[in-house]
Amino acid sequence: MAGTKCIITGVPGVGKTTVITEALTRLEQMGVPYANISFGSFMFEMAQRQGLVANRDKMRLLSKDDQRLLQEQAAEGIARIDGNVIIDTHASVKTPKGYLAGLPEWVLEALKPDLFVLIETDEDQILGRRFCDPSRVRDLDTFRALQSHQSFNRAIAAAYAMKTGCTVAIVTNADHLLERATGDLVGLLT
Amino acid sequence: MAGTKCIITGVPGVGKTTVITEALTRLEQMGVPYANISFGSFMFEMAQRQGLVANRDKMRLLSKDDQRLLQEQAAEGIARIDGNVIIDTHASVKTPKGYLAGLPEWVLEALKPDLFVLIETDEDQILGRRFCDPSRVRDLDTFRALQSHQSFNRAIAAAYAMKTGCTVAIVTNADHLLERATGDLVGLLT
Amino acid sequence: MAGTKCIITGVPGVGKTTVITEALTRLEQMGVPYANISFGSFMFEMAQRQGLVANRDKMRLLSKDDQRLLQEQAAEGIARIDGNVIIDTHASVKTPKGYLAGLPEWVLEALKPDLFVLIETDEDQILGRRFCDPSRVRDLDTFRALQSHQSFNRAIAAAYAMKTGCTVAIVTNADHLLERATGDLVGLLT
Repeated sequence: MAGTKCIITGVPGVGKTTVITEALTRLEQMGVPYANISFGSFMFEMAQRQGLVANRDKMRLLSKDDQRLLQEQAAEGIARIDGNVIIDTHASVKTPKGYLAGLPEWVLEALKPDLFVLIETDEDQILGRRFCDPSRVRDLDTFRALQSHQSFNRAIAAAYAMKTGCTVAIVTNADHLLERATGDLVGLLT
Repeated sequence: MAGTKCIITGVPGVGKTTVITEALTRLEQMGVPYANISFGSFMFEMAQRQGLVANRDKMRLLSKDDQRLLQEQAAEGIARIDGNVIIDTHASVKTPKGYLAGLPEWVLEALKPDLFVLIETDEDQILGRRFCDPSRVRDLDTFRALQSHQSFNRAIAAAYAMKTGCTVAIVTNADHLLERATGDLVGLLT
Repeated sequence: MAGTKCIITGVPGVGKTTVITEALTRLEQMGVPYANISFGSFMFEMAQRQGLVANRDKMRLLSKDDQRLLQEQAAEGIARIDGNVIIDTHASVKTPKGYLAGLPEWVLEALKPDLFVLIETDEDQILGRRFCDPSRVRDLDTFRALQSHQSFNRAIAAAYAMKTGCTVAIVTNADHLLERATGDLVGLLT
């Protein structure tokens, strides 16, 4: 469909939601409409409507095949939306069994993204933000574990670029420089 | 087929065989059966049965197309095994012409792994282990060359995750901490 | 077709053209013929013959679908060339919207490369070379931006290796060591 499909990712604590929210405000002021969709929520609502799960915690109990089918259907659903869409998700998810691709091949093939954004910052700053955020329970990663995760995300983003032809942009959301991160993201989306 | 298909990789000298052997002992004690298959040996035995090669050294003399076909058939054969399987192989192989994918697309599509493990440790320790192992002739890599190889392995593991949806876990096999590496691997396999 | 198809890449300023030219001279002396094709020029000439564009600047104005089709046709055209071919292109291109895969999936599938070469050197040296080259207008990247680009190129090369089964070799073109870089490249091509 017409419009830009832009995937926005970042490790927990990097400030992804904040940057997206600020960017959407500016984009609205500029008259550039963007729908903002959380891939996880979109998929959950789809599963709920199909009567597959009662609540979000049940999602992880679905069979691998069911999960894959839901992922595909969600990607197809988002691809059908007319106009610009931000897809808020993860490059990779850190699970007890290792890193899981946020956008496996079957999602990318259905979604056909134009742009893939990695929101990053120094691991030190992420650790500080996670520590100071009482509203969410977040992994107590070490500096090295975070470094490894951000680096894995860059590598998997390269694989996404090979698969889809989308561009991969890095937006740095450094301490005290939210304005700049927002400006960079707005620049990518306009 | 039912069961977990787990690919285990690591550069020569990282102690892959040792960690796998220790983990298998513990898994047996825990009553969790795992078959342990070397991808290379499985493929060679297949080639031998088909009368394609007389000994293992001849494998590299096969045409590219024959090698690819054998890789596919080996992957299909392993995928058909019922139950849990460890597949012992390489994320990438260092050859005179550069790094070669241990699991190119056609292998991944046939194998459908659930889990991909990178056994790693500091380059310094790997150099030490290679130097002290008189039983095998191994590349005399430099620190930087090893760093480059381990880093390439992480990048290609990310591509494997995109392609298959398998998780990618890193197990550190540090000096004096084999117990820990074994425990980490057992944790991933149970 | 018979012959080696070798993709050679490197960030602007790394000295890719110089190394290729030197290597071709030596290969000729050795009696090993290689055609040398710039992927971008090959694609542009194809577009020009089809009446799609009047000059090279117009290439970027083509629709995404047209660009993709041209990429595929160029890759197919190069794959049909009998004999050894060097394909001079980029692992990834740095654009205002982020890194763009030089060899997206549809190009790799048509091109079927045997070998992928990354020509690299220290970021510092690349910065120096860009600064001292008055003949071309080149990005004034920072050290970190260059580091990020070279690192992204390695990651995407790993994805290319997974997709095609080609080997990925790194040739270092360090200051004062052009002889060595040339020798390394010739070694890969013979």
